[in-house]
Amino acid sequence: MERPVPGGLPGEKEEERVLVSEKSWRPCPKARRRLRGCLERVKQQLFRVGEDWYFLFILGVLMATISFVMDLLVVRLYEAHRWLYQEVGDILVLKYLSWTMYPMALAAFSTGFSQSITPYSGGEGTPKIWIPPPPGSGIPELKTILTGVVLEDYLAIQNFGAKVVGLTCTLASGSTVFLGKVGPFVHLSAMAAAYLGKMRTSVTREYENKFKQNEMLVAAQAVGVATVFGAPISGVLFSIEVMASHFAVRDYWRGFFAATCGAFVFRLLAVFNSEQDTIAAVFKSDLKIDFPFDLLETFFFAILGAVCGLVGCAYLFCQRWLLAAVKENRLTAKLLATDKPVYTVLVVLLLASITFPPGLGQLMASRLTMKEYLTSLFDNRTWGVLVPNASSVAKPPGVDPQGLWQEWYHPSATIFGTLAFFLLMKFWMLILATTLPLPAGYFMPIFIYGATIGRLLGETVALLFPRGLRSEGDPHHIIPGGYALAGAAAFSGSVTHAISTALLVCEATGHLGHVLPVVLAVLVANAITQKHQPSFYDGTIIVKKLPYLPRIRSRHMASYQVVVEEFMERQVVALAKGGGFEEVLVALDASVNAEYPVVERSPTLVGTVSRAQLVAFLQSHKGRGRGGFVPTHPHCHLPKAHHLFELLKLQRIFVTRFGELVGAVSRVEVRGGGRTRGSQRGG
Amino acid sequence: MERPVPGGLPGEKEEERVLVSEKSWRPCPKARRRLRGCLERVKQQLFRVGEDWYFLFILGVLMATISFVMDLLVVRLYEAHRWLYQEVGDILVLKYLSWTMYPMALAAFSTGFSQSITPYSGGEGTPKIWIPPPPGSGIPELKTILTGVVLEDYLAIQNFGAKVVGLTCTLASGSTVFLGKVGPFVHLSAMAAAYLGKMRTSVTREYENKFKQNEMLVAAQAVGVATVFGAPISGVLFSIEVMASHFAVRDYWRGFFAATCGAFVFRLLAVFNSEQDTIAAVFKSDLKIDFPFDLLETFFFAILGAVCGLVGCAYLFCQRWLLAAVKENRLTAKLLATDKPVYTVLVVLLLASITFPPGLGQLMASRLTMKEYLTSLFDNRTWGVLVPNASSVAKPPGVDPQGLWQEWYHPSATIFGTLAFFLLMKFWMLILATTLPLPAGYFMPIFIYGATIGRLLGETVALLFPRGLRSEGDPHHIIPGGYALAGAAAFSGSVTHAISTALLVCEATGHLGHVLPVVLAVLVANAITQKHQPSFYDGTIIVKKLPYLPRIRSRHMASYQVVVEEFMERQVVALAKGGGFEEVLVALDASVNAEYPVVERSPTLVGTVSRAQLVAFLQSHKGRGRGGFVPTHPHCHLPKAHHLFELLKLQRIFVTRFGELVGAVSRVEVRGGGRTRGSQRGG
Repeated sequence: MERPVPGGLPGEKEEERVLVSEKSWRPCPKARRRLRGCLERVKQQLFRVGEDWYFLFILGVLMATISFVMDLLVVRLYEAHRWLYQEVGDILVLKYLSWTMYPMALAAFSTGFSQSITPYSGGEGTPKIWIPPPPGSGIPELKTILTGVVLEDYLAIQNFGAKVVGLTCTLASGSTVFLGKVGPFVHLSAMAAAYLGKMRTSVTREYENKFKQNEMLVAAQAVGVATVFGAPISGVLFSIEVMASHFAVRDYWRGFFAATCGAFVFRLLAVFNSEQDTIAAVFKSDLKIDFPFDLLETFFFAILGAVCGLVGCAYLFCQRWLLAAVKENRLTAKLLATDKPVYTVLVVLLLASITFPPGLGQLMASRLTMKEYLTSLFDNRTWGVLVPNASSVAKPPGVDPQGLWQEWYHPSATIFGTLAFFLLMKFWMLILATTLPLPAGYFMPIFIYGATIGRLLGETVALLFPRGLRSEGDPHHIIPGGYALAGAAAFSGSVTHAISTALLVCEATGHLGHVLPVVLAVLVANAITQKHQPSFYDGTIIVKKLPYLPRIRSRHMASYQVVVEEFMERQVVALAKGGGFEEVLVALDASVNAEYPVVERSPTLVGTVSRAQLVAFLQSHKGRGRGGFVPTHPHCHLPKAHHLFELLKLQRIFVTRFGELVGAVSRVEVRGGGRTRGSQRGG
Repeated sequence: MERPVPGGLPGEKEEERVLVSEKSWRPCPKARRRLRGCLERVKQQLFRVGEDWYFLFILGVLMATISFVMDLLVVRLYEAHRWLYQEVGDILVLKYLSWTMYPMALAAFSTGFSQSITPYSGGEGTPKIWIPPPPGSGIPELKTILTGVVLEDYLAIQNFGAKVVGLTCTLASGSTVFLGKVGPFVHLSAMAAAYLGKMRTSVTREYENKFKQNEMLVAAQAVGVATVFGAPISGVLFSIEVMASHFAVRDYWRGFFAATCGAFVFRLLAVFNSEQDTIAAVFKSDLKIDFPFDLLETFFFAILGAVCGLVGCAYLFCQRWLLAAVKENRLTAKLLATDKPVYTVLVVLLLASITFPPGLGQLMASRLTMKEYLTSLFDNRTWGVLVPNASSVAKPPGVDPQGLWQEWYHPSATIFGTLAFFLLMKFWMLILATTLPLPAGYFMPIFIYGATIGRLLGETVALLFPRGLRSEGDPHHIIPGGYALAGAAAFSGSVTHAISTALLVCEATGHLGHVLPVVLAVLVANAITQKHQPSFYDGTIIVKKLPYLPRIRSRHMASYQVVVEEFMERQVVALAKGGGFEEVLVALDASVNAEYPVVERSPTLVGTVSRAQLVAFLQSHKGRGRGGFVPTHPHCHLPKAHHLFELLKLQRIFVTRFGELVGAVSRVEVRGGGRTRGSQRGG
């Protein structure tokens, strides 16, 4: 400290300095000193590689590049399908085969590929709480990890490649399967973060610690969302809302930085690839900003929110029901256990048959890609007053962005019929698609579904009030595109129990004019869904039976009257402080907890010791108890106990009365205690 | 539970039901039952009044109305000043007097009025940790309250009126004093929330609890920011970033709801008042969205961020220095202690003399109001290429919004000269203004200052590259307005250590096209300032010596090596479990802590008891110790101890080794422990 090395940081360079000064008897002191300074600076730079900012930057850039390349590949694959479908000519059977076989093959490959890799990665290492299946979005599992449960393998880098390839195939099957990319991308991002974290600790020789790991996971999730939508701010917010119950403002900083890097590079690549002239919103909309909506329209936006909330409830209920039904049904359960690709093929065949364009597909605009769905629904024109151009109907979509809406037009059903039919059919088709055992995200389809609800309601309002809502003054036409924005945000928000979808929709379209009605619709929808259904991710956690602590849904007085004493486990296997080999063996046999209380003079709790430590003790005949435990009191009320679990990410708390061990509470009991009396009112 | 009353909620209605069934021997059971149902329903509605949503709605609407009415009043007062200045004719002395006297009178009144009320509200009740002075923004004190320190009087409703009147006067003195409204409004909102909370507990007879209070305060802060800028999303985010170190996603929901209500009503009132045609952004800008910026411009945005960061550092340093200097200087200290209005008058006289339009003021566009400053700086045109219209220069500003920029034009200095001069002068004038003892916010001036930095840099870039940055293709003109946006966000973000200013600038202007470069600039500016200076609010906390726990600035390994043992207080005054009257008296005499450890068999910690309980015991000869304490272990490392303090909002932790009390740690020690070794690298 007294002799600071130029440019050197105190503390961590001390060792180097000692080594250097030992060699100071050698000649050419000046040149040596200069060289030493150089080396010092280089070393410093190397050390800085371990710093968070570099790491977050790399993470953001990496995920943005993967996201962009994946998008490119998916577009190519999708174009190939379109070309194939166009080229087979007018023979209906060939057309049907080319329409159905392509997504079937891709989905089956996706299922099989991700299937073939996982057992390897699941086979190594120590015993785990639960080995997760690779398919699905991955967000429920991440949410569980963030509450402090260890699902180590879930972030193993070995799954990375399989998930990337599987997801690409899923996305390439396009709007037939109607699945998205957000969930798996968040998972991929978390995997990358975990891997980079391990690499970093090996470079900097810092000991890995839980704090840092968690910080990085939170940032990784933000990167995942941000690189899909190119939306840094809402990426951070959405990931926080969906994943965490509490978070540190410090983490928010990190998430922001990483997500901005990711979103920036993601959009930058689009510019380099000449897709865009400059950095702009991903789903750029041209809604007019001068007069986005009339004040009276807020009423319709609130109705839209209520409709989205109710449909959200129905969707969540049916989705949970089907997930359970598929598991219980003997046929599907058997298929899913042994022949996952067969199940995939059957489901995709059904979905593709329904969306076949010459059949029912013409009523569902099924020739559009996922991105085209959104672009068309956010169109700034009112479809009800447009006249379709007959010549361009025959053309494939995607050639003329202004003509995309014509895909929604059907001579006999009009756009109202097709929009309604789309909503009706996609409701169960989407739910069916979520049972597919392949890596896929469920946010994007929900987003599109919500936009369709909004567009239908908006077109209806525009039809009812062709001159706007005001009788006097200039007519202000109603913009159904604004309703589509609000619908997308409200429905996706209600299903995921998130409010930041309101911002997401703004950032993704680059349009802020509708922000207040959008927020209104999202709040109404959320108020309805949060009261009646768990969120999509919580629902999956429930169905998958992951060890997760749900929030106390009612903060009402009743829950403050429930005290720990009422629901704690009273038969706790404890170790005496001076206990020997045999006693430890008996305790290990008697229960399988991760941590054991250590008591003195029978009931006084003096510390805890982990199972791993006890096992080590049995093997080596030496061990040391830990004292850094957090006990609680039998009269601690339920919300406080819940708070302790949530904030300190605990798995088990010992209950002491004046130092004496009287019981223990684990997450199971907290959930149970909440159920017996606390959450009765919360429904 | 077995016989649910129709429409009744279980649990809380139990008492009523018992009362009702006692009277069931009376006649007319059917009519009575119907009446009873009606009463039940009415009662239920009354009970629902106590629910959070109603409460948050009321809070939002109330604050929005106050904010709007205050804005109206301020505009009227300002117009009166302008009219007066215009009407006195061309006599320079009269002009000077009318220019300087008006803000002097208003500021002196503001100082005196808020001064005359406070002693009353400070005089009642129990002893407090610290009696806060009424002037200033109030955010540092709120921040302290949120970490669990009790500053009860600070939220007393008695100060509400004084602060509203004082703030109105401060704002009406306009751009001469150059102060804003955000900080005091957040404070007002928190006062209203605390008062409404007390009213609610008296209506619902629920016992008031800390959880709920905190939740409401967080929501109130969001309302405060949202109703000033009409920006719900960034209101929530900014208040979180500035106030809290950790927050629950549940709180975020509440904040969102209340802020949306507030922002909605705030903008709605503007529509009703015929200021606006429909709900739109507060500082609506017309920056073009098709091609907001060239990719190569991101380089200049990064430079802008760096400039803002450096100026932010200088500003924070000088501001802290001046605050301390004013307190230490004998003359100013005496004035501030006894004759606050005199100090105010002197400072405002100086400020007003400098901004006198025929004098130096013409080089600083001093005739503009705060809002006009922002509107003009966010102008979508490039000032450098505009030719001023001589006829409109003489007119007062505010008549023609397109001509506002001409205020910045000076024939001999050009706009570059005036912008630079404005930056130079306002730097110290703003710092001087922050020492004024009147209720005022410091965010808005910082925001405008940042916008000016951005505008100057943007105009310079536009001058250097008149055809845009690309040599080939269509020329894309550079939009200096975009730089002004980025500058405002970056400078205000760097001074407050917040990132959400990036979103705030977008929401306030309704323009999202520049979001990525704005975020980039904010991140660069924050990276610089956070490394070298505490934030504006933390700086004030340091100067005011509030009991606040700063964050550990470095998460580096060094801080993990510091353990509690090294910095804990070893001489803890403890009570024996069976201790009597005298022992308690001795303990109470020996230290003034809020909580005492209770030990058994000398060192084993068995519980804690609060000072208040002990005093009650001495008075009534009966008392009960509490056991719901969180002890820690001597080998607990510094970040974990910090985490415990931060998350559980603790004031003191007892340190036990295997149950035996060995010491205690309070916030002071954590701060000290951090200083000795932990934050060496972070500093």
